[in-house]
Amino acid sequence: MNWHLPEADDTPAAVVAREAAVWRPLAEAARELVDLCVMSEVDEDEVRAAHTDLEAAVARLRKVRRARTLGQEHLTAGRRRPWGNPVIGLRNPLAPPVEVTSEPGGRVEAAFRCGAAYEGPPGLVHGGIVSLILDQLLGHSVGAAGRPGMTGTLTIVYRQGTPLGDLRAEAWIDREDGVKTWARAHMIGPDGVTAEAEGVFILPRHIREQIS
Amino acid sequence: MNWHLPEADDTPAAVVAREAAVWRPLAEAARELVDLCVMSEVDEDEVRAAHTDLEAAVARLRKVRRARTLGQEHLTAGRRRPWGNPVIGLRNPLAPPVEVTSEPGGRVEAAFRCGAAYEGPPGLVHGGIVSLILDQLLGHSVGAAGRPGMTGTLTIVYRQGTPLGDLRAEAWIDREDGVKTWARAHMIGPDGVTAEAEGVFILPRHIREQIS
Repeated sequence: MNWHLPEADDTPAAVVAREAAVWRPLAEAARELVDLCVMSEVDEDEVRAAHTDLEAAVARLRKVRRARTLGQEHLTAGRRRPWGNPVIGLRNPLAPPVEVTSEPGGRVEAAFRCGAAYEGPPGLVHGGIVSLILDQLLGHSVGAAGRPGMTGTLTIVYRQGTPLGDLRAEAWIDREDGVKTWARAHMIGPDGVTAEAEGVFILPRHIREQIS
Repeated sequence: MNWHLPEADDTPAAVVAREAAVWRPLAEAARELVDLCVMSEVDEDEVRAAHTDLEAAVARLRKVRRARTLGQEHLTAGRRRPWGNPVIGLRNPLAPPVEVTSEPGGRVEAAFRCGAAYEGPPGLVHGGIVSLILDQLLGHSVGAAGRPGMTGTLTIVYRQGTPLGDLRAEAWIDREDGVKTWARAHMIGPDGVTAEAEGVFILPRHIREQIS
């Protein structure tokens, strides 16, 4: 369920680059913290000391809070800036982040790493994390093809476990019919395709009016 | 795709309680950090200072690393201790966490809060996060019903956007046929059901042998 809608934005590229330079290192350190929350084995005193350091960081960041979520952040020069997105967001420590490249026809490729924090069954990526990432890629595919929308139905077929570690995924447009678009995606591990996804997307009304 | 398999464990409850008391506050502070990474609006100097504090915490936790992921942690007194799980894990800052209660027949209920870090479309929970949470609940349902397994197929039908904030979800067993179990789940927002899920689970071989 991802909107890929054009919005106006006039933020200069240099300002965006500067913001990225400020927030990216924080998010990257936060990703390492997330990993260590599940993988560290230091003793109790060290955990408590780390907690104290962490509270100091939190107290600083808590001083000023955005009025709106990043989902309502503007685009820059026609490009989306989904920094808060939980799959691809530069500022979101939940995001591995997945790096996505897409072609105008809707062909999408992504490479990323899922560490211990994404684990479901022992040693394997949680099946719901697989669906999260594939849903995101399906959204990129329909967006890149100019057929944006929210996911109507998402179907995932799990073929084999997806091992933790370096992974790839790809998505493409399967077919279109009126206001509906079917996109497909694969999660790919070292032993090939681990899960197959299909998403049905419905064109939002305002896009239909632009097309018709 | 969730295993719900019995494993041996002899960790005393008091040791587990003590571990929880040590790690839970760290994970809770890390959840607030995750939220602030997308919602803080402090100035550049403050972000950099927070990053320095955060690096101090990370450096402490990095000193000793577990040999195995938490997914391979033992059970305690027959109860699973999925502290690393990205949906329900006490130690995992990716997890809201979702608190799940389940009945032996497979009826499952959950209450949780999805803040800004779970955002997809502006103001709404990412559709893939919806699928992640519902997949987890489906797994609880088949586990509680004594029909555990990995998800074979997961289907999500999105009825309306799921607003960020306090949410509920429920799951139940729909039907069984031989080695297959069909479970269903709903995501529920302030305006009712936002998404419906169905999961098909296949009993693992060693469970089939116990049952037959």
